[in-house]
Amino acid sequence: MFITIEGTDGSGKSTQAHLLSERLRQDGHDVVQTREPGGTTGAELIRSLVTQGDVDRWSAETEILLFTAARRDHLERVIDPALARGQTVICDRFVDSTRIYQGCKHPDLRQLVDSLHELMIQREPDLTILVDVDPAAGLHRALTRESQETRFETLGEAAQTTMRSGFLALASEFPNRFITINGTRNINAVCDDVYSSVSHALAMRHISCGHSKPNVKR
Amino acid sequence: MFITIEGTDGSGKSTQAHLLSERLRQDGHDVVQTREPGGTTGAELIRSLVTQGDVDRWSAETEILLFTAARRDHLERVIDPALARGQTVICDRFVDSTRIYQGCKHPDLRQLVDSLHELMIQREPDLTILVDVDPAAGLHRALTRESQETRFETLGEAAQTTMRSGFLALASEFPNRFITINGTRNINAVCDDVYSSVSHALAMRHISCGHSKPNVKR
Repeated sequence: MFITIEGTDGSGKSTQAHLLSERLRQDGHDVVQTREPGGTTGAELIRSLVTQGDVDRWSAETEILLFTAARRDHLERVIDPALARGQTVICDRFVDSTRIYQGCKHPDLRQLVDSLHELMIQREPDLTILVDVDPAAGLHRALTRESQETRFETLGEAAQTTMRSGFLALASEFPNRFITINGTRNINAVCDDVYSSVSHALAMRHISCGHSKPNVKR
Repeated sequence: MFITIEGTDGSGKSTQAHLLSERLRQDGHDVVQTREPGGTTGAELIRSLVTQGDVDRWSAETEILLFTAARRDHLERVIDPALARGQTVICDRFVDSTRIYQGCKHPDLRQLVDSLHELMIQREPDLTILVDVDPAAGLHRALTRESQETRFETLGEAAQTTMRSGFLALASEFPNRFITINGTRNINAVCDDVYSSVSHALAMRHISCGHSKPNVKR
């Protein structure tokens, strides 16, 4: 099963991806935890090109191409092989982030993201957890951590608000795979909700595929 | 007018691009000389990712995306603005190199290069000079120069022979914009042929556009 965790900057989604992976491993699942942009040596190099430097370093179109290049490498070397081995892949950001961060700047760009995805990637997640937070609180959290990857955070609160709305609209567009979790609570409460949603989806999938349930510790 | 110079590694096309630019400037043309991958600060960073390292560093599909990202940046920041100002752009490699280096590996990949070009770039050159050389001689020249950009040269002579055939086939596919020059001669003889071909095309273009000829020194 291919699970993605999405959300605006400072939503706590990377922490949640880590906690979810740990809990699923405790349940006996064979989990590969990864992230975008990045996840491979080559894709991490592309990540540094797109997450650092000035906001206007690249146009939205060039950004879309760079994110898709990193995604293609990640898909070929990590995601597809893991899914072929029957592992559960948990990925911090995927194409939905490109749909929102680049695609929401102009209606034509969302079409461009989708066309490029269809041409070069094709794969959509089986399940997407949207960690939804108040943009001001998220931005404060993102800007107070030590990181050189501030290129998108410097867009400011208005942009984060637009992106939050974009993610919520995307969750409505793909209701079969999106689950929205309120991320403006303490980490453990959010983690419990993420875990129970994913556990339920995994159990349903095993039933529908005719598999026995994994080795669940009780 | 948008002029590209193409050829296999060590064909001498970069030298010819420089000499052609100089001669056209002496004739009074306002020339922008540039190169791919590269031509802008950002695209040169992408260039280092694709021209250095192991041959299997990226798949053909990821390479196509990276070259297209570099091309998009170059197009937006250098080529399109120069053409809009009425300048003559001379570019060392463009999409034809991607069609040959990545696209000739598999018939589906050539289709992918063309689809991606149509989606993200669109622009085709007005005139393309193909500097055609014996692959063994070109490879020897490419490998004896001091450069870290040896990723494609290390593919060897058989690959260079395939690429040469690919370029010649491309010249037949686009006869209206390709001019093939025998590059296995001394630099000045090649330069004279390149210059006379381009001068003729520029003169024809000025006549067909109803412009007066540029300030030609006699």
